[in-house]
Amino acid sequence: MTTTIAGYLLTRLKEIGVDHLFGVPGDFVLGFFNQVLESQVNYVGTCNELNAAYAADGYARIQGVGAFATTYSVGELSAINGIAGAFAENIPVIAITGVPATVNFEQGTLLHHTLGDYRIPLEMFEKVTVAATLLNRPEKAAEEIDRVLYACLDLKKPVYIALPADMVMQPCHAPKPFKFPPKKKSDPAQLKEALEEARQMLNQAKKPILIADDQVIRYGLQKAFAKLLEKTNYPYATMMLGKTVLDEDHPQFIGQYQGIRSRDYLKNRVENADAILILGGVLSDLNTGGFSTHFDPIKTINANIFSTRIKHHVYDRIYLEDFMLGLAQILQKKEKSSLDIHPAIEGCTHRRTMKFHVEKEKKITHARFFDRVSSFIEENAIVIAETGSSLFSASETLMPKNTTFIGQTFYGSIGYTVGATLGAATAAPKRQTLLFVGDGSFQVTCQDLSTMMRYNLNPIIFLINNDGYTIERVIIDNTYNDIASWKYHKLPGVFGDGLGFDVYTEGELEEALKKAAKSDKLCLIEIHTDKMDCSPSLKAAGEAMARSNKLSA
Amino acid sequence: MTTTIAGYLLTRLKEIGVDHLFGVPGDFVLGFFNQVLESQVNYVGTCNELNAAYAADGYARIQGVGAFATTYSVGELSAINGIAGAFAENIPVIAITGVPATVNFEQGTLLHHTLGDYRIPLEMFEKVTVAATLLNRPEKAAEEIDRVLYACLDLKKPVYIALPADMVMQPCHAPKPFKFPPKKKSDPAQLKEALEEARQMLNQAKKPILIADDQVIRYGLQKAFAKLLEKTNYPYATMMLGKTVLDEDHPQFIGQYQGIRSRDYLKNRVENADAILILGGVLSDLNTGGFSTHFDPIKTINANIFSTRIKHHVYDRIYLEDFMLGLAQILQKKEKSSLDIHPAIEGCTHRRTMKFHVEKEKKITHARFFDRVSSFIEENAIVIAETGSSLFSASETLMPKNTTFIGQTFYGSIGYTVGATLGAATAAPKRQTLLFVGDGSFQVTCQDLSTMMRYNLNPIIFLINNDGYTIERVIIDNTYNDIASWKYHKLPGVFGDGLGFDVYTEGELEEALKKAAKSDKLCLIEIHTDKMDCSPSLKAAGEAMARSNKLSA
Repeated sequence: MTTTIAGYLLTRLKEIGVDHLFGVPGDFVLGFFNQVLESQVNYVGTCNELNAAYAADGYARIQGVGAFATTYSVGELSAINGIAGAFAENIPVIAITGVPATVNFEQGTLLHHTLGDYRIPLEMFEKVTVAATLLNRPEKAAEEIDRVLYACLDLKKPVYIALPADMVMQPCHAPKPFKFPPKKKSDPAQLKEALEEARQMLNQAKKPILIADDQVIRYGLQKAFAKLLEKTNYPYATMMLGKTVLDEDHPQFIGQYQGIRSRDYLKNRVENADAILILGGVLSDLNTGGFSTHFDPIKTINANIFSTRIKHHVYDRIYLEDFMLGLAQILQKKEKSSLDIHPAIEGCTHRRTMKFHVEKEKKITHARFFDRVSSFIEENAIVIAETGSSLFSASETLMPKNTTFIGQTFYGSIGYTVGATLGAATAAPKRQTLLFVGDGSFQVTCQDLSTMMRYNLNPIIFLINNDGYTIERVIIDNTYNDIASWKYHKLPGVFGDGLGFDVYTEGELEEALKKAAKSDKLCLIEIHTDKMDCSPSLKAAGEAMARSNKLSA
Repeated sequence: MTTTIAGYLLTRLKEIGVDHLFGVPGDFVLGFFNQVLESQVNYVGTCNELNAAYAADGYARIQGVGAFATTYSVGELSAINGIAGAFAENIPVIAITGVPATVNFEQGTLLHHTLGDYRIPLEMFEKVTVAATLLNRPEKAAEEIDRVLYACLDLKKPVYIALPADMVMQPCHAPKPFKFPPKKKSDPAQLKEALEEARQMLNQAKKPILIADDQVIRYGLQKAFAKLLEKTNYPYATMMLGKTVLDEDHPQFIGQYQGIRSRDYLKNRVENADAILILGGVLSDLNTGGFSTHFDPIKTINANIFSTRIKHHVYDRIYLEDFMLGLAQILQKKEKSSLDIHPAIEGCTHRRTMKFHVEKEKKITHARFFDRVSSFIEENAIVIAETGSSLFSASETLMPKNTTFIGQTFYGSIGYTVGATLGAATAAPKRQTLLFVGDGSFQVTCQDLSTMMRYNLNPIIFLINNDGYTIERVIIDNTYNDIASWKYHKLPGVFGDGLGFDVYTEGELEEALKKAAKSDKLCLIEIHTDKMDCSPSLKAAGEAMARSNKLSA
């Protein structure tokens, strides 16, 4: 059985879970796109390449893997920041580029879109991917495709495939079933020793605490984590990157820990714990309340995906899932009443369990908006929040069962969420998809609002119009934080057939929510708030960034 | 006298001609922006980073040099395709990035916006710039700034400066006057020999022809070229990249030569010439009618900026200006009547010298639109045309005196012109600035329409709505060339206070032109044409690209 190189690649994409390919045309990629249209993979055209990359990233966070394709240089280099973000955040995204024919590559023909050295884009992508290939040898193409896709799934990082125009239809053997990366294995001796050490620390502790973070989500280890909770009764907190690792009404979930930016109970409960077990944590500035988390090494076990640090020593070949399941077997179950557990569902900042009395004529505030919207989010929703005031407040909002929370909390490229919303909604068009985004961020990537409508997706977009870059204003304010004033709520009608709402008061918000809940169209709800109206945690983050960047007002 | 590193850099920018700096905030660049606001350089905030880079490129094409500044990774990597375009097209653009403090660079702190290895963005930019620096040593900063800016001006290519947050306010000696790159020098013996050889070839010829192209514009050699014309009486053609090298009503200008895509007279006049002198030519696919130009080496002198090829041998140390001025001194002036000169002003495709009778009710066509608009363009205008049907037809339109024509004709990144229009209009707000752009390209970078209005610029934008990517449709058509249908003419009112016009007929076009001519606001005129309605030259280009990419319908 034979196929073509494009056919082989597309079969593999479908096999590993890529049902939709995002893309923007350009002459060098048209041959490949012709084959996409003939394949089982659905083509989704975006307005620009950066949004194609962001969409593939958002898609991957729901679907497990994502892909996009663009043309050589002009297309792919516009998308490279999206791949850099996926690289930083451990998202398996496949970047495919249609490149000039091999003869041009070899001869360096003076074609449009070229930069002298034809390998420049490939060499750039090599820096932000874990595997990259130029498919210029037909006899090696199948093997190369498999190598690169394996690395993508195995390491949860982006990869890059350059497909020359003349290679698209080259014959290639039909694929055998893909060899998916096997489950990681721990070193048995290391695992045994580490488990025993951890058992002693944790069983002896009176007030242990678990912190579940990013890697538990990225590597799909939620079940092992749930088992650990069930077997121990320990309370757990998340950090911002670990939000919605499990249902947030879990009785052992006490909220989002972010160092000095946490509420008092949570801060004390974590920092006064006599044993701390961090699972899959990313100790970056934004995720640790600006490095204000306190994890005393002498009482901390920091279990990462492939290594575990206990006190001051490291076990370097332990797989996180093995460690969690091992602990679930050997730890004593503690009495819940002894563990000082105040569930997040009764304590976190914005929550549906707080009564909200609408004051119709009252100008809506940032805090009141998130209080109100906490009960608008449905079970099984996808909630996406843009870096900035949206991310900080949405992450402090209690999410219903089975919610998936998406933010680019580590890399923090503003504008990310418009593309990511397109991608996430494409992966799960039946789930309620909500985006919280500020005006400044929205301006970066606004155009693909139209793509959502074009493909009949109906997310609800809360555009928080606070008249500029509030995330920068809390660091230091000056006129460069001002932006053009748009009538955002009119854009759904200009870009397509969605609905727009202009909200200043709590009464207007109620009206908009009522209509949006009933609509099967995309809805954009523009929420006007004051310039500096944001969460205390964002203000604290701004102060930390000002210090770190030697800025003073 | 001392200043700061930021102060030194800003003084230099102003000194070399950067009166405006385009930028997007982000925490690592805020310290630098504070200093920009205190300086003689005007800050222009754009909606996103790619448009900041495109704006700096468009600005440089008018002003001689351009600059933009963004934040680390998330900002600069979104802009890198703009720098790649400037690199490909020889535009001196300075990319400035605010990066984390040196201590973070050294320690690899897990900060937001980072990619593990802090040097990744710098290493990417090194590939598409001629000089790049990280200003992490205060005592070297002034020297490094001067080295990089010198390279930018000397080689007419982009450069990169990374300024750590803690270096912004470090003391630095005040700048002495900048040493601008001196005029290039030819090797005297080479110049003498080449001039003598060229003299014999050209004086003997009965029907010589000059072709003036890209480098004559990029290196500002128009005066030397005009002198050569005056002293010889030879006719000249341009290629697409050389458009508006001199006034197009020049009596010796016979039009735009693009191989088989040229009108018959022009094609014959060039290809039957008995001596061809190409000045500063870029023999790329788009600039040569898909490599269909015919320059028989035995009768061709190909004079490039630093080298000259005569027949089959090369003089590798001749500066183009010296060669042109040398020829102007030694060539015989020929009789005009003997040279078969049919000026472009009476022969090119779309020209104000052709009578245009408005047929009010008639649906406007692509060709009739350019026929009509040729008399709307004023002297001293800036005309910007997006790669695609706009570029092909605008380049075949006769321009009035002192017009500057801008297209990204070699690199061809669609979406370029929205940012470039912002940049060009910022550099010359009093000149009539016209943009011709297609719907698909406009969607890529639309947001900075708002920035033009925010800064009270009033270009007139002709948005040719042909319902998708016509430039791709002429290569091969399929559903990926469809795009979302926007109400483009409503965007000026949503993004700001500009005027929008929706034009289907010739009568409506007249109305819109009348109002636009009188308005001091930005005007966007949406011109509806059929999907495949474009110039024969674009269709021919599409066929050539289909062949080159092994595509068949």
